[in-house]
Amino acid sequence: MQERAHRGFTLWFTGLSGAGKSTLSSRLYALFRERGYHTELLDGDEVRTHLSKGLGFSKEDRDINIDRIGYVARLLARNGVLVLTAAISPYRDARDAVRDAHEKDSIPFIEVYAEAALDALAERDVKGLYKRALAGEIPHFTGVSDPYEPPTHPELTVRTDRDSVDQSADQILTYLQRQGLIG
Amino acid sequence: MQERAHRGFTLWFTGLSGAGKSTLSSRLYALFRERGYHTELLDGDEVRTHLSKGLGFSKEDRDINIDRIGYVARLLARNGVLVLTAAISPYRDARDAVRDAHEKDSIPFIEVYAEAALDALAERDVKGLYKRALAGEIPHFTGVSDPYEPPTHPELTVRTDRDSVDQSADQILTYLQRQGLIG
Repeated sequence: MQERAHRGFTLWFTGLSGAGKSTLSSRLYALFRERGYHTELLDGDEVRTHLSKGLGFSKEDRDINIDRIGYVARLLARNGVLVLTAAISPYRDARDAVRDAHEKDSIPFIEVYAEAALDALAERDVKGLYKRALAGEIPHFTGVSDPYEPPTHPELTVRTDRDSVDQSADQILTYLQRQGLIG
Repeated sequence: MQERAHRGFTLWFTGLSGAGKSTLSSRLYALFRERGYHTELLDGDEVRTHLSKGLGFSKEDRDINIDRIGYVARLLARNGVLVLTAAISPYRDARDAVRDAHEKDSIPFIEVYAEAALDALAERDVKGLYKRALAGEIPHFTGVSDPYEPPTHPELTVRTDRDSVDQSADQILTYLQRQGLIG
């Protein structure tokens, strides 16, 4: 009755607020859907409502949030779903724990560092948050009043302060094709 | 590259502690795997560790737990996975909210009431919990010191105090086949 589905994976974006994680992951989600893949984007309101309600921005709470997103991503990916996540995920150990859990299940885990200079983000400041954070008005703002630990060996780094969304998306698609993860 | 996977669904067990939810769902999980289906069982330590850490047994906390399990079940099922859940899920409104969310996504939601008389469970009392609960030593013990609201219109009722595991599993498989949900 059933047929074998394609192999799943988790494409895990990490990077500062405004670095383009949501924009890029939405773009790829739409592309995957167009091509007929099972895909899920774990980002935004749904995750916050269902998985992270009540959590704050302490290291402990952020780590719990990442553990939950990582758990759900892993369950989906091991059932053939192409999973995209777009949480800031500032702490290296929390990301590495998610990676380890994926590797134990033999699921490809692709960490994508959305790199953008703080200056560029503060200048662009789409939501006006950097201005307020730099003025000391937002506690626990990643990169300003809270730490961000960049990945040491990400599978991919996209330079969203320099390249267009199309360029970054192409860079990721090329990587996935070369790895045989998409057709 | 990819092929279409089979249609997913959520088989949601509800019932008192000791009523056979875990036993039955494990049995079906093994059967689904043998037949080559993508399947996940949301039960036990993994769910408690990753989704429900820190939650207690108040109505509010139980409802949050059910909402989270329901959310993950829905994501999996809408990507072709046969999902089994085995939480007590004592409150009707929380179960109905999960059902509604599934129906909005056009995902089959099959509520299976594992029905067993409290007397039978208290007599069997595998883990010795009923004795302690009936002695007033366990607060929030479902069916004794905490409410259990049976489903009003479950898709299936299995009488685990009367039928064998094999009989109940067969009853569920027959239902799934008649609905065209498994081959």
